[in-house]
Formats: sequence, C-alpha cells, structure tokens
Amino acid sequence: MILTVTLNAALDVTYHVDRLVQNTTHRVERVTRRAGGKGINVAQVLRTLGEDVVVTGLAGGDTGTAIRTDLARRGLTDELVPTAAESRGTLAVVADGDATGFYEPGPQVTDAEWRTFLARYDELVAAATVVALSGSLPPTVPVDGYATLVGRAHAAGCATIVDADGDALRAALTARPGLVTPNRDELFGATGVHDPPAAAALLRAEGAAAVAATLGADGMLLVTEEDSWRARLTDAVAGNPTGAGDACVAALAAGEARETPWRGRLRDAVALSAAAVATPVAGEVDLARYTRNREAVSVEVTSAAHRDR
Amino acid sequence: MILTVTLNAALDVTYHVDRLVQNTTHRVERVTRRAGGKGINVAQVLRTLGEDVVVTGLAGGDTGTAIRTDLARRGLTDELVPTAAESRGTLAVVADGDATGFYEPGPQVTDAEWRTFLARYDELVAAATVVALSGSLPPTVPVDGYATLVGRAHAAGCATIVDADGDALRAALTARPGLVTPNRDELFGATGVHDPPAAAALLRAEGAAAVAATLGADGMLLVTEEDSWRARLTDAVAGNPTGAGDACVAALAAGEARETPWRGRLRDAVALSAAAVATPVAGEVDLARYTRNREAVSVEVTSAAHRDR
Repeated sequence: MILTVTLNAALDVTYHVDRLVQNTTHRVERVTRRAGGKGINVAQVLRTLGEDVVVTGLAGGDTGTAIRTDLARRGLTDELVPTAAESRGTLAVVADGDATGFYEPGPQVTDAEWRTFLARYDELVAAATVVALSGSLPPTVPVDGYATLVGRAHAAGCATIVDADGDALRAALTARPGLVTPNRDELFGATGVHDPPAAAALLRAEGAAAVAATLGADGMLLVTEEDSWRARLTDAVAGNPTGAGDACVAALAAGEARETPWRGRLRDAVALSAAAVATPVAGEVDLARYTRNREAVSVEVTSAAHRDR
Repeated sequence: MILTVTLNAALDVTYHVDRLVQNTTHRVERVTRRAGGKGINVAQVLRTLGEDVVVTGLAGGDTGTAIRTDLARRGLTDELVPTAAESRGTLAVVADGDATGFYEPGPQVTDAEWRTFLARYDELVAAATVVALSGSLPPTVPVDGYATLVGRAHAAGCATIVDADGDALRAALTARPGLVTPNRDELFGATGVHDPPAAAALLRAEGAAAVAATLGADGMLLVTEEDSWRARLTDAVAGNPTGAGDACVAALAAGEARETPWRGRLRDAVALSAAAVATPVAGEVDLARYTRNREAVSVEVTSAAHRDR
C-alpha cells in the first residue's frame, strides 16, 4: 500500500464567471468543489494507475466534512485525522480562460491533535511500502513535522518521498528522506542556488538520498547516489500545469513500490506529468496519453562518471 | 412566535485580502463564514430584539451543514428542511474597503423536498403569529411558491410579510399578503412605475394589503388601507447598507406580533434599518443606536384624506 499524507488538506472550489469586474457582484455560472491538497491529488493519480492507496493527514470543521464527502464520492480510502479547527478552502475564479486564486489560511492544529495524528500515522506506515508527504504544513504544525514523519516511516521500513517547500523541506532533510521533488522555484528557495544540478547536489549533501527536480519545459532532473539524469518529453505540452507535480510524485511513488529502476521511474514521471498537464483537473490524468507519452520521453545520463553509458 | 422563511439559504463567506489583482493568486488574511439569506438575517435581528423566532426554509449538502452549524452557534432555532442538493454560497472579497461579490446558483429542489417543506411549514405557521418570507427562490421552486406559503399561513391565522423581487413578488400578490417590503429597484421592477407612491398603489391594487417601500436616503414609504406615510431619519447615516432591508422586515414583523400601530412600526423600521447600516455585518444591529434613532425619525402623513392630522 502507498500512503499519501496531506497535512493541510483543502476544499478546492472553482467559480466560473463570464467576466471578472472588481467591486461589482457576479452570478457564478458553474461551481465545482473538490477535495484538494497535493497528497490527495497524488492519491487520485495513484488510484488511476491501479495502485492500492490510502489518504491520511488532517481535516476539520464543515470544510473538512466536505473534503471527506468528496473523497468518499471518489472512492479514495480516507484515513484523515480530524481537527477541531476548520480546514482551508482554496478558490479559483475562472473567467475568459484566466484564473484568479485565493488561498485561505490552514487550521490551527492542537498539540493533542498532532499526537493523535502521529499515532495513527505509525499504524498506517507499518502497512505501507512508500509514503508520499506533500504540500504545506498548517500554521501550528511543527516546522520539522516532515522530519518527524520521515523518521517514523523509516523506522517502520517504509520508503519516503517529500514534496515540500522552504523551511518545511529544509527541516525534512535532517531525517534523510529517500526522495525530494522540488520544482525550480522550490529548488532555488531551499538552496539559494540557481543552477539546478548544483542545487540538487546541495539538497543531497544536506540529507536527501535522491532529488527529482521538475523544471517545467526543461523536463526533469534526477540525481541519485549513483547517477544523474535529465529527461524531457520530445513534444511540447500545452495545458494546465496544476497537478503536474502531483502526477510526478505519484509516478515516483508507484516506481518505488514496484521497484522500477530509476531510469524507468524518471521516464514514467515525465510522461505522467505531461499527461496531467493535458487534463484540466489536478489529480486527473489521461492514461492513453500517458502510454503514448512514455514513447516520447528522451532520457540522458548527465553524471560525469556515466557519460559513456 | 415569529417564523422566518429562507428558501435559498446561503453560506456567506468573506475573504479579506490586501489587494485584489486579477489573474494572480492571493493569500486570504482573514475568512468569515456565516449563515445567510435574508430570512436568516431577519431572524437574527428579531432575536436581538428579544422576539421568539424560528428559522425555516431549505438547506442541503455540506454547505447546508455549515449553515446549520452556524445557526446553532448563534442560538437560532433551526427548522430548516434538508435538500439533497448543495445550498449556495456567496463570497465577498474585501480589499481596500471595496467588495467584489460572487453568488453561487441555488440548489435544485425536488418536488418531494418541496412537499416535505410544505408539510413542515404548515406545522410551523400553526404556532406562529407572523411569518416573514424573504429572498430569492431556488431555481426549481415554483415561481408562485410565496403565494402558496402566504395562502397556507392565512389559512392558519398567521400574518404574512413578503420581501421578494420580480416574478416571485408579483406571483405572491395573488395570495394577498399582509405586507410587502420592496426597495426602490424592486418597486420599479415589479410595477414598471418610477414614482414610489404610484408604484405602491399598484402593488396594493394587485393584492398587497400594505406596502412598506425602503427608499434608501429618502427613508420609507408606508401605504396601508387607511393611510400613507413617509418617514426618514433626520440625521444621515453612513455605513454598510447590506442588511438594512432585513432589519426593516424584522421591525415590521415584531410590530405585527406586538400589534404596534402602523405609525410606530414605521418609526421602528426606519430606526432599526439605520442601526443596521451602522454595523458591518448583515443581521446585526446596535440596540443603543436603535433607541437613539427612534427619537430622530420624522414621520409625515402623506395621504390626502389625513393631511390635517
């Protein structure tokens, strides 16, 4: 089983309006409400791939109830731990193809709730082969929360992937996660280094066993203990980049669970991310396109020691 | 007991942001969530006035649950009837003192749900002295829904106040409601007549026993079978006009329940509306200001037959 953790689960609401005019009122033509947060999107993609997946994290209040209702509707196994405080919502107002976004602050999680979560988490990682820890931390969760979760997973023999940002990512490194998956901005934000290979090397030096950096149109950079690769899709992809990072994490988690060699995981991650870009909703992927994309990924070994391969 | 009916109950959400910039993302600094819809605001004001009040109407889905959670928090007696479909939300994005509003569409109410509501409504009006029917109808509720509700209330010996708009207001007139409370736009919208006294006379001719028209800075016009009055506050009021109409309905409902003479009801309605304008949240009024305002209302008899009073 693959476990995905979403500590700051959200209800993602989309309003479709004809035109957005500030300081006026708008009739919303269409509303969609969907459980969100990166870990939940990762779980959805894993389920589409046919993996056995469980969702945990924190959710509370009526917004938490709405998140759980949607997980049930989608058939995702829900092991979210409740908080008294209200989970956050996100809103995208879509007009004329452009989106204006609003992110509510996350819930205040109490110490007792965090301890309850850790106890449940220990039970879940004991049954998992891989855990994917994704997204932001609610304001009162300790900044080294992901380090704690990585350490407990490793103690249970469960592999770890961390998709986080800034201080939460840096703190996670101390627990030596198996893989971190920053995008270009996150890579720079966590290291202060602009050159992706150099920044990735720094993250490895600080504790990450492997780094898979998603670089948008420049494809992906993967650095492991043994090798360094660059992969990209040979065709350009147009669409919605939201959720591409989550699809990438899902591919890497599935690869870990299946013990796919790294080169294959990288190919799958690039192909699946691109399949996610082609669909409008985060967490959804077009499997037929994924299969086609896998034939169109170029993988290049970039590490000096292996240039002759 | 006073009954308020909110067929299209809403969860009113307010996002406070620093600045609204289209096609970018925003961190929401503060979120408020509050049960809304005109009838719920009327009930809140009645409760502040010390009246015994019950809330009914329709609410469903997780948004309906959130509405009911907030009613419970506020101590309002909740007799809302559930729908399978999701209640609507409204959103106000407040930045730099200005608001940009979004109104979701209301729920699809089934015939069976409407019949269940009618049965519950009959029980409730049997115990009520006054019913206030306020706001829009969800899309699938019959346009003559308010006429049905007025007729059933009268059959139970319960007085009726209708605060509605357009076709819903026009259709309600056929059941001869005791009082209708249009604002200037609604008065024109329902009659096509710009002159408020002439438009009010038309609504009376079409079935309303009395008309209380709220005319913003021009105060209120009240036309009953016997008399016609104009009342206004002698001091100007600055603030938030949202909720002033609901406070007005609350004053008129309380006056009906207490059998206050019309002239006193009018004074109370103007004073309470102005007290609502002075507070930022719909449904809240400052009682001290209400008491002061009552001394500052000028009431003028305008009907020809009574000019010598």
